[in-house]
This record gives sequence, C-alpha cells and structure tokens, in this order.
Amino acid sequence: MTLPLLQVALDNQNLADAITTIQQLGDVIDVLEVGTILCLQEGKSAIEVMRALYPEHCILADTKCADAGSTVAQNCKNAGANWMTVICSATIQTMVAAKNVMDDIQIELYGDWTFEQAQQWLAHGIHQVVYHQSRDALLAGETWSEKDLNKIRRLIEMGFKVSVTGGLELETIEKFRGLHVFAFIAGRSLREAVSPHQAALDFKAEIKRVFG
Amino acid sequence: MTLPLLQVALDNQNLADAITTIQQLGDVIDVLEVGTILCLQEGKSAIEVMRALYPEHCILADTKCADAGSTVAQNCKNAGANWMTVICSATIQTMVAAKNVMDDIQIELYGDWTFEQAQQWLAHGIHQVVYHQSRDALLAGETWSEKDLNKIRRLIEMGFKVSVTGGLELETIEKFRGLHVFAFIAGRSLREAVSPHQAALDFKAEIKRVFG
Repeated sequence: MTLPLLQVALDNQNLADAITTIQQLGDVIDVLEVGTILCLQEGKSAIEVMRALYPEHCILADTKCADAGSTVAQNCKNAGANWMTVICSATIQTMVAAKNVMDDIQIELYGDWTFEQAQQWLAHGIHQVVYHQSRDALLAGETWSEKDLNKIRRLIEMGFKVSVTGGLELETIEKFRGLHVFAFIAGRSLREAVSPHQAALDFKAEIKRVFG
Repeated sequence: MTLPLLQVALDNQNLADAITTIQQLGDVIDVLEVGTILCLQEGKSAIEVMRALYPEHCILADTKCADAGSTVAQNCKNAGANWMTVICSATIQTMVAAKNVMDDIQIELYGDWTFEQAQQWLAHGIHQVVYHQSRDALLAGETWSEKDLNKIRRLIEMGFKVSVTGGLELETIEKFRGLHVFAFIAGRSLREAVSPHQAALDFKAEIKRVFG
C-alpha cells in the first residue's frame, strides 16, 4: 500500500513565523496546511504567499468552512489552495458547493457527527475526512484511544481517505499500525522541534517503518 | 421588553468594500459583525480597522471557531472584537476556552445540534446562540418555516439570547412576532440595498413596529 502522507499544519500566529517554519521543512512534507489560526490572522495572503514559495505543493486551506461554501472555496482557490476543509456540521449543500470549486475538500470531524452523515457525504462524492483530537480536549487531558482507532477503521472501511491530527508525536504513529491512514497531520511537534527539518525527516522515517 | 438589536454582517470580499458599507450604516446598527468571509480574506486587520473606525461599537468576529478556542479568542480580542462565534460542533472545552477570553461568545447553530447539547452550553454559562438559515440551504430554495420558529421559541424558553440570520429581508421580521429575538442579523439586504443607510433605518423601524 502507499505510505501515509505527512502534512504540516502551519498554525503559526503570523506569516513571518509561518515562513520560518515552512522553509525548514517544505522540501520534506507532502501537504502544506495553512492553519485556521493563520488564515484568521493573515487572511488570504497567507495562502498566496505559500503558493508563491511552493508553486508545486499541495496546499490545504484549513478554513473549517461552515457556510457560503462556494464563495469561501473560490476565494481559497483564487489565493492558490488546492484543498480546503469544511466542518462536519455544515449542510450537504455547503460541502458540495465547496467541492465543486476546489480540487478536493476534507470534512473536519468535530463533536457529534454520525456514520449516517458520513454515508451521506460519500453519496455526494466526498471522500476525505479529518479525524481530530481537539486541541482543547487534549489540553483537558484526553488522548488517542481504542475508541478513536475503531472509528477511524470504520471510516476507512466505508471508503474514506482519513487524515488524523491532534497532539501527534513521533511515538503516536505506531498506534495506527495496520490502519490505512491517508495523512498524518503534525503541527506543534514539527514547528516547535529543535530542528523542524530533522523532525519532519523523523516523521517520514517512522511512517515508513510502521507502514512500509 | 427590550427591542431586538440590529446586527449588520459585513460579509464583504475585501476591507475597502466593507468600509464602504459600514460608513453608510454604522451609526444605525447595534452590532457590527466582521463576517467569516471578510475574516478569511483580510485576517485580523479587518477587525482592527473596524475597531479604529468605531471605538465604541460592539464588534463581533464571526470566526465560527471549531478548535483552539483560547488562541482564536485572544487573537480576536487583541484585534478589538468584543464577541466571537463558535461552531456548535466544537467541544465544550473549546467553547469555554473562548468564552473565558471574550466579553461573550455566540454558538452558531448549523446541522444536527440537539437541545441536549444546548442544555450543556447553558450549564457552562453560555447564553447566546445564532439560529441560521444556511446561505447554501437558502440557495437551494429553503426558507424560514414553522419548524424553525418552534426551535427558536424553545431556545428562548430555555433561557438563550437567540440571534437569527439567513436571508432576512424587511418582510421577514414580521414572521418573528411574539418571539423575543435578541438580534436580527442582516447582510446582503443591507449591503446591497440602493441606500444601505435607509435600509438599516427601515429595519430598525420595522423591528420597532413589530416588537415595540
């Protein structure tokens, strides 16, 4: 099977800081995510600058779009993004409107989404989801559990490409052995490493060791 | 009873356009919303500029925050916002984290939220919700129905301050007669009026006629 991708979440507070991060690991990662915080701080120019720096990269705008799918998607596309995220509580109309504009969209799984909803997304041609440990849940002491892994397995079996994120450390990768994860999304553990470049290489090596 | 407030949603595509809108009706409206689209296009400077223009206004950042509640809230507050929105599918931790920073937060009701969840929000001191007709649902031909009004009534009876939005025209206000709505949020019908200033005055007069 193909190896899971490595996605960096640029949840930096400003563009200069995001550029500092990406310059250290842009050549290693597979998907460049302009994080929600960065989108809200810098606006579309965060996407535009990343596209200028990395003309060939797959760029994801983590807008967590909840409404006005077509407008938000067109803005992201104009700025240079390939993919964008849509929140799971958005209507199907919003999801489809966004998907019709972008190369692809990812549904962000937060809160009480159901597998019945997920089946609907598939029925509308939506094949990517992001399974989260919420940052705030992590801060409250929650972590990856068997329950999470079972839900991810079920989503994969339904036919989804499942990306996983939330407090991912190098040691977390091993927990997903045997699960055909689409992408591992790492933020802090790459950005705040002593050497982000080495940390990204280590993640790639660990992914290869576990899934190769 | 106090009259429902009038909130303008600045869902403009860029800051210059938003300034053109707000200069025409800033003296009439009660709450100034920096819309999601504008937040994503211009970043925090959209909030900063509105605060510079209207030092005394109540400014709402419509971030529809799904995670990292504390960080997003601190950024919004630093930029000058009083309130921000949090999506209903966010965890309670995210909601509380945001509320602890801002003067207040509004939970954006999209998709399959439940009254049991709403009860939980109340239990955590969260008292504002926004009841939506999704823009994309409206585009698909849906409109305000008795079912919507009943849900709004129930939320008000639970103790929520309920703001309503989505395709609100002057004629729509009458539909809410007898419901103690907290704020009517109008976007396009104000922005795209021949005279946004007159349109805002008309909304205020209609609110007074129906609820006065």
